[in-house]
Amino acid sequence: MKPEDLKAVRTFVKECLDGRHTELDALDDKPSDVYERFRETGLANWWLPRELGGRGLGLEDSVEIVNEISYGDAGVAFTLFISVLGTSIVQLYGSEELKARHLAPMAARGSFCATLGSERAAGSELAKIDTVVAADGDELVVTGEKFFSTNTDFADFLVVIARSAEDPEAYHAVLVPRDTPGVEVVQRWDVIGLRASHTYQVSLKGCRVPAANRLDGAGLRLLEIGLNASRILIAATAIGVARRIRDHCMTYAKGKPFREGALLDSPVFAQRLGQMEMQIDVMKSHCLRAARDYDAIMADPGAAALFHRQGTLKSALTAKMFCGQAGWEVASAGSEMFGGLGYTHELPIGKLMRDIRYVSLVEGGDDVLRELLFSRYVIPVPRRS
Amino acid sequence: MKPEDLKAVRTFVKECLDGRHTELDALDDKPSDVYERFRETGLANWWLPRELGGRGLGLEDSVEIVNEISYGDAGVAFTLFISVLGTSIVQLYGSEELKARHLAPMAARGSFCATLGSERAAGSELAKIDTVVAADGDELVVTGEKFFSTNTDFADFLVVIARSAEDPEAYHAVLVPRDTPGVEVVQRWDVIGLRASHTYQVSLKGCRVPAANRLDGAGLRLLEIGLNASRILIAATAIGVARRIRDHCMTYAKGKPFREGALLDSPVFAQRLGQMEMQIDVMKSHCLRAARDYDAIMADPGAAALFHRQGTLKSALTAKMFCGQAGWEVASAGSEMFGGLGYTHELPIGKLMRDIRYVSLVEGGDDVLRELLFSRYVIPVPRRS
Amino acid sequence: MKPEDLKAVRTFVKECLDGRHTELDALDDKPSDVYERFRETGLANWWLPRELGGRGLGLEDSVEIVNEISYGDAGVAFTLFISVLGTSIVQLYGSEELKARHLAPMAARGSFCATLGSERAAGSELAKIDTVVAADGDELVVTGEKFFSTNTDFADFLVVIARSAEDPEAYHAVLVPRDTPGVEVVQRWDVIGLRASHTYQVSLKGCRVPAANRLDGAGLRLLEIGLNASRILIAATAIGVARRIRDHCMTYAKGKPFREGALLDSPVFAQRLGQMEMQIDVMKSHCLRAARDYDAIMADPGAAALFHRQGTLKSALTAKMFCGQAGWEVASAGSEMFGGLGYTHELPIGKLMRDIRYVSLVEGGDDVLRELLFSRYVIPVPRRS
Amino acid sequence: MKPEDLKAVRTFVKECLDGRHTELDALDDKPSDVYERFRETGLANWWLPRELGGRGLGLEDSVEIVNEISYGDAGVAFTLFISVLGTSIVQLYGSEELKARHLAPMAARGSFCATLGSERAAGSELAKIDTVVAADGDELVVTGEKFFSTNTDFADFLVVIARSAEDPEAYHAVLVPRDTPGVEVVQRWDVIGLRASHTYQVSLKGCRVPAANRLDGAGLRLLEIGLNASRILIAATAIGVARRIRDHCMTYAKGKPFREGALLDSPVFAQRLGQMEMQIDVMKSHCLRAARDYDAIMADPGAAALFHRQGTLKSALTAKMFCGQAGWEVASAGSEMFGGLGYTHELPIGKLMRDIRYVSLVEGGDDVLRELLFSRYVIPVPRRS
Repeated sequence: MKPEDLKAVRTFVKECLDGRHTELDALDDKPSDVYERFRETGLANWWLPRELGGRGLGLEDSVEIVNEISYGDAGVAFTLFISVLGTSIVQLYGSEELKARHLAPMAARGSFCATLGSERAAGSELAKIDTVVAADGDELVVTGEKFFSTNTDFADFLVVIARSAEDPEAYHAVLVPRDTPGVEVVQRWDVIGLRASHTYQVSLKGCRVPAANRLDGAGLRLLEIGLNASRILIAATAIGVARRIRDHCMTYAKGKPFREGALLDSPVFAQRLGQMEMQIDVMKSHCLRAARDYDAIMADPGAAALFHRQGTLKSALTAKMFCGQAGWEVASAGSEMFGGLGYTHELPIGKLMRDIRYVSLVEGGDDVLRELLFSRYVIPVPRRS
Repeated sequence: MKPEDLKAVRTFVKECLDGRHTELDALDDKPSDVYERFRETGLANWWLPRELGGRGLGLEDSVEIVNEISYGDAGVAFTLFISVLGTSIVQLYGSEELKARHLAPMAARGSFCATLGSERAAGSELAKIDTVVAADGDELVVTGEKFFSTNTDFADFLVVIARSAEDPEAYHAVLVPRDTPGVEVVQRWDVIGLRASHTYQVSLKGCRVPAANRLDGAGLRLLEIGLNASRILIAATAIGVARRIRDHCMTYAKGKPFREGALLDSPVFAQRLGQMEMQIDVMKSHCLRAARDYDAIMADPGAAALFHRQGTLKSALTAKMFCGQAGWEVASAGSEMFGGLGYTHELPIGKLMRDIRYVSLVEGGDDVLRELLFSRYVIPVPRRS
Repeated sequence: MKPEDLKAVRTFVKECLDGRHTELDALDDKPSDVYERFRETGLANWWLPRELGGRGLGLEDSVEIVNEISYGDAGVAFTLFISVLGTSIVQLYGSEELKARHLAPMAARGSFCATLGSERAAGSELAKIDTVVAADGDELVVTGEKFFSTNTDFADFLVVIARSAEDPEAYHAVLVPRDTPGVEVVQRWDVIGLRASHTYQVSLKGCRVPAANRLDGAGLRLLEIGLNASRILIAATAIGVARRIRDHCMTYAKGKPFREGALLDSPVFAQRLGQMEMQIDVMKSHCLRAARDYDAIMADPGAAALFHRQGTLKSALTAKMFCGQAGWEVASAGSEMFGGLGYTHELPIGKLMRDIRYVSLVEGGDDVLRELLFSRYVIPVPRRS
Repeated sequence: MKPEDLKAVRTFVKECLDGRHTELDALDDKPSDVYERFRETGLANWWLPRELGGRGLGLEDSVEIVNEISYGDAGVAFTLFISVLGTSIVQLYGSEELKARHLAPMAARGSFCATLGSERAAGSELAKIDTVVAADGDELVVTGEKFFSTNTDFADFLVVIARSAEDPEAYHAVLVPRDTPGVEVVQRWDVIGLRASHTYQVSLKGCRVPAANRLDGAGLRLLEIGLNASRILIAATAIGVARRIRDHCMTYAKGKPFREGALLDSPVFAQRLGQMEMQIDVMKSHCLRAARDYDAIMADPGAAALFHRQGTLKSALTAKMFCGQAGWEVASAGSEMFGGLGYTHELPIGKLMRDIRYVSLVEGGDDVLRELLFSRYVIPVPRRS
């Protein structure tokens, strides 16, 4: 990443996000114009490969970018990076033709895609997915109800995880263009945080796509692989929010009279902030390490096969778990820092606390991740850290 | 307390609070009609002494009542009990005439009072109070800006803590009827939780009251004494909210399919709920113990003098600290229990988390209380637990 | 309890335990002479009922006594109170004749009894007990291997939990005099803390006792009932140890130069100690509440039946869980208070940390207790707190 | 590092440390023969530069080595790496002649050095150091009492931090050969953990060394710089101990019957181990990141000046803080995993818990480090993470 790219992101944050929380969190129908403004930086979908017209930035750079945007607003960051979940599946397991048809325009237009995995009864247990994909001649017909999916309404296409009608033990991942008849948004979720993002409940009513839209591999495995990038970037949002909390604390403490001086001079305050800074520093180290693990595989010509063998990356799991936990500790400590004022909307700590909470909730709660970590990376002795 | 009183409270919670969170939290201008409904139970201001026409219930009973109401809504509970801060000061340190004039009507009408302590620059450090009370003939004139005060707008009277114009080292507590000219509400605070309550910024512009409205004793000490009851009841709200979170978890877990059965059968879920139950049980033990400490002093004919010597009760400090911390742990754990749905407004966990947070923030943050506890109850060897 | 009793305990602690840690922890073969010295206070087995010649003190008093002794040494406290587990079973479910024969001498002589529940493969899962009791004429024959039992070697009698030879689904509790042929101590455990106590692995080789030595009721249920008193007193040891840690911190901080003054003046130190004091205060409240719950049942003429219906007391479970956890937090914080010196044997913090750890480990780890709490006191709605 | 080096370390651990805890922890007078055995691997003082005859391994490699040795025994690891504190000061700020005379033999012989910083009244506050260094012709005379110093008795030389007799505001670091007359070991500390290491109280009675033995730069700054490497390696010991705890848990759980199967199959156990593994993974990421920060500076030809400007590395502080805290959490959780047996010396968890505790205590407690982090890396805005 060129230094001017990171600088462009910081400028975007300063100019487009600062001071606009009320507006961004209003749950407006349409995506805010900030997404248009981000597109102008030339960094929209920054991870799409150069050969498809993208910027080709790796995940290590992505961690930095997401960290910066989340400092401004985590919901905006989530909207801007979450397409990576779907695009990485298509990039690794889609045909060249499919990539040219769907990823190249995303790179050119800076538009969005969505991934539709979870269902009402299939949240942490994806094997309970009931959405069905059936072959019909050289077409596939996708039918089902999807519970949580982000960006869907304004996405170019959806990557849908569905059970095979032919083999109920098998799952497929299918690319469904957004404008396919039968794709219907049921509702937008009214979320407690990350309100600048748009998450929907979606109904798929006999959506027909060419058979070639099926991605190559077992559907649940492909989803697991796609989650590697998105989980690491979800973790990275916690860094940005935690940094923002720290900076609010510092600004407040400078201005807050305390005893003979300012709160900033209080040794107790120093302890709290020293602890926060440590946590932020470790969060950052670990996200970058996870991103390097990911980039190393992606740099391999056999990345698709490597990932298929590996599935979920250990460091992607531990990054999301750790940053969710440490981020929550930072937010909990932060929320006690501002006295009564911190309990009003005069100060943004309430919003930041609600925003950061999502890190431990989406794409697998900690209980689910701990169990996955245990079965994949503790039981097999050579895979232990 | 008669069993039917507690039953009446439970009926009130069920009939008037259940399912009305959106409405209660809307920050309406006027107090909700639920306060009128509570009055109909005959329990409004249940702690006011019998000789003034009140119900004369002690703090131990109050903990039970507040626990129940908070199960329904912590903001409603706060509105209903926070008058105790002011009334207990008046009851202990006001003249008989003052009590007859101001407390008896409150008992009869089920109305409210407010206490005005904190100021912008005097939150945790009350000695920085700048509001001034000056003698003028047989009147007192109160002038200043108060930052946070609950119920003020619709209160019968305010207990104002002010610095003496005559002796800047001295503070007084003065009873100011709400309709005194010069009492002006600057704004209602837009709070992140406890939204059914009404907290205001208030301006006092030369408010004149009879000299006899000054309560007997050092103002900061009287405030400290008044905080004993309110801090214990703030702690008790955490019990109610935590119990509500636990019950939501149980209801959700019964209906949530998990593996072959329901989430309720999961040993991991059992661990989480077992831990919560332990925390709730201890919170309750300790609030009741603090309340008994308080009631024992109040039952003494020399209560006013005893309290003046004692100031802040140890168990009132530890109850608020402990319930704030344990309540926050329950809420943090609870907020991870509901998957993605817990991040939407479909489920009330977001609200409950925001509500319970106030316990550690109002009437002294934990840092302030820890320091007070240390200087008053650890340094002097015989006062250690 | 008369005030002079508590005073006698404090004198015992001061004169017999202070400064004797090295000796007490040396794992000597014979019980230390401190037990003889305690007997001289007239308080040995203070809980035994008056009608059997005991002091008849309740559990609330016991919490105070154990708190005081543990301040001196938790291992000594454990040795002195753990007989209550066996005696309470005999008192509630033994015949008058059995009580006269075995409890009355214990009251007179201040001697000990032991309870033999756990086995190697039956620690947290007592239903896996393999020790067998078989009827043989008007005798019972007890055979098996018991893993952990305290005081056994120098006890007057053992209460053994065994599976019925006649009905493998049934368990009995049988009183076995220590001098019964076949009672063999296999080894004394070399424990990491609580080293003044004596815990043994014991072999029972065809021990014959009269059939009347069987206590009345289901064996596992009787054990559960016996554990009520001992779990509450185990919890109470944490109070004493935590108070000792706090006092060591205070003494150290007074003498430790820090900046211009002493560590005692550091606001950060005040925070740590304020938090500790809060935890100690809550531990104490909750142990006393659990003890009152227990005493209320014991005061009922139908206590045996009431306990048989109730089994494990909720507050006994939560007291042990809470004091184990809070005690460990106090010890963890304490262990960071003394700089490098705290990592040497110059200061006792290492010992106190090792001692307090037992609270969460013996008589059911937290995982076991949480699950019990969940199934008994959360699942049934009316039993929730 | 060549793979065979790490393999040699693992073989050393297996052959020389496994099963020898009792012996290693016996606090024998002489260093155990394991140090001799380690020397045979050719890796003794592995970090000494090639130009002085050393192996020239960087700190990133050192983290791996220390992690492995600590898996065997943290005390042995500490003994083997702690010389780096002194050697790095000499390497960066000693004359070529001094390095040739003192570091080259250490590389050749695999011997030890010691650093003497702290004093009784100068633990966390090194500016209170009272040891004095006075110029006397072309000699320096060092006099004072040093409280904690590791390896001193069998070290080749000591790096002593002392106050200048000429300028009481100035401190020097002086190399004092161990056999200098006046160097006297007062006592070896009886430590609660890390017992395979040797830490001493030392008296310096007019020790005379050539003036050229003074290292170039302000003494406290040089010490701070030397602590960078050692703090990172102290942090790394926590990884090894935590991994050992995890592996003991796994071994135990495999053999421990639980319900119908083994404890290993328990979902609750899986949660505990999943959390541990996450913590271990993050500890490792962060130590390696800190080590790379260090290596990057050391690779610069102007390393001495760079370090002098920088002083304490941010990531060295955060690595020690984080690994101390996370390691303690792992140990606390681990110590609840083994039932009653975990409270005996049958299982090593007690030792591992005592060992890992040192990470948060030596070379600056967390309070000290948090304050340093705050003043150096939070107050100055551009240095924030």
